[in-house]
Amino acid sequence: MSLNDLRISSVHNPRVKEAAGLRDRRQRKRQGRFLIDGVRELSRALDAKLTPLDVFVCPELLNGDEDRTLLARLRQLQLPLVEVTSQVFAKLAYGERAAGVVAVAETRQTTLIDLDLPADGLIAVVEGLEKPGNLGAVLRSADGAGVSAVLVADPNTDLFNPNTIRASLGTIFSQRVVAGTSAEIKQWLTARGVQIVAARVDAKIDYFMPDYTLATALVLGSEAEGLGDVWKSSDVTPVRLPMLGVADSLNVSAAAAVMFYEARRQRAKII
Amino acid sequence: MSLNDLRISSVHNPRVKEAAGLRDRRQRKRQGRFLIDGVRELSRALDAKLTPLDVFVCPELLNGDEDRTLLARLRQLQLPLVEVTSQVFAKLAYGERAAGVVAVAETRQTTLIDLDLPADGLIAVVEGLEKPGNLGAVLRSADGAGVSAVLVADPNTDLFNPNTIRASLGTIFSQRVVAGTSAEIKQWLTARGVQIVAARVDAKIDYFMPDYTLATALVLGSEAEGLGDVWKSSDVTPVRLPMLGVADSLNVSAAAAVMFYEARRQRAKII
Repeated sequence: MSLNDLRISSVHNPRVKEAAGLRDRRQRKRQGRFLIDGVRELSRALDAKLTPLDVFVCPELLNGDEDRTLLARLRQLQLPLVEVTSQVFAKLAYGERAAGVVAVAETRQTTLIDLDLPADGLIAVVEGLEKPGNLGAVLRSADGAGVSAVLVADPNTDLFNPNTIRASLGTIFSQRVVAGTSAEIKQWLTARGVQIVAARVDAKIDYFMPDYTLATALVLGSEAEGLGDVWKSSDVTPVRLPMLGVADSLNVSAAAAVMFYEARRQRAKII
Repeated sequence: MSLNDLRISSVHNPRVKEAAGLRDRRQRKRQGRFLIDGVRELSRALDAKLTPLDVFVCPELLNGDEDRTLLARLRQLQLPLVEVTSQVFAKLAYGERAAGVVAVAETRQTTLIDLDLPADGLIAVVEGLEKPGNLGAVLRSADGAGVSAVLVADPNTDLFNPNTIRASLGTIFSQRVVAGTSAEIKQWLTARGVQIVAARVDAKIDYFMPDYTLATALVLGSEAEGLGDVWKSSDVTPVRLPMLGVADSLNVSAAAAVMFYEARRQRAKII
């Protein structure tokens, strides 16, 4: 660390307390800020041109090559680095994580109005996911499969939950992620002539039957609740994942990965 | 509860302490027993003809239809039910779970020698998975895709970790799951003429290129370490999952789901 950096050794420091408060959803909403944990996650946020307001680092925990690269980059960007002791870092850090870096950033969210998509876009819609980790896992697979946008059909979803960011491995920052109600999203898709395919356990055709080379939205619901009525209209194609064992459904992030990659496979075949 | 059932209200009861100790891996090894948390998980264990040694139930937490069905079934099987207070249950139960039932069962493990497979078997091999939850998630997808057996290539794996059982949603009990070293497993597969396909980030062909209608083993390694040298020989076909975003790999359970279902898709097509 350079001498120009601030150093905090008290867990009672107001800046530390304010940042630690962002573990709580209400605080995120009130402050309009959220936390980014981890070297890879913050690197991906920087890649996506996100500028953190504060970066807390615990030098003892930062020893790897990737860590040093990030530190050099933060300095080059002239971002405000705050060095903290391991005790202070423990207060800031999430659960057991010893990633050595936590950044504070402003929550900013794209809306459906801002969203611009390629003509043959592949879109993911997720509705009512209970666990932030599941949403993060879906985002990570969507990134891998080259999904154009992820529409989160649940106005109560908090995209800035640390578990979402962590499970997404920071891919959340490079993706177009938009929250809206199911009705708004359905309308948006329909207006653009996007084929809508929804995973449902009671569907009659297998997930690999539709033609995914068309502009397509793949809709996935929660395991417990299934999909809402908006997705049960005649302009939505229900598909099933064959369930050949004793369980009646896959984890939503597994189902998402299978469907995203099937669309990708079909598209690769025609190139 | 019937009057014949035992009721325990002390967290210091030796039977409770012994069972709670099974959260610890060394205790599981020493006692040769493990825990099954949750109504669905225990139901699936019973479906698979597993007979628990002890079943602890907390009546206040068991109110649903599925719960009552399980209780009736446990009575019919004349299994020893132990009623515990919510305080005792909290000591027994894993983390935040309020499933209302924890059973103790004997660890029994199939070996490669016992394993008998259909001629066109679809086998999963996982090597060096760090997180029990990831192994459980792979097991759940393997169940869904009708994978014939899951071979766990890591002698240090503890298949009886509560997180593995929970993430598998109890599908672990109905599946053939065998642990062994990578060398043993590779030899076993080769002796049976099973095609071996391994997911590797540096592979030159896409995962959907091989013919999965042949007897096939799909090999997946840890995200951090990748696959060991055993799987780098010329009789192993490396395949990649296209990575079109910023991340360089999928979560292992997502990659597993994609590969299992691609094999299943190819097999469905020829029926």
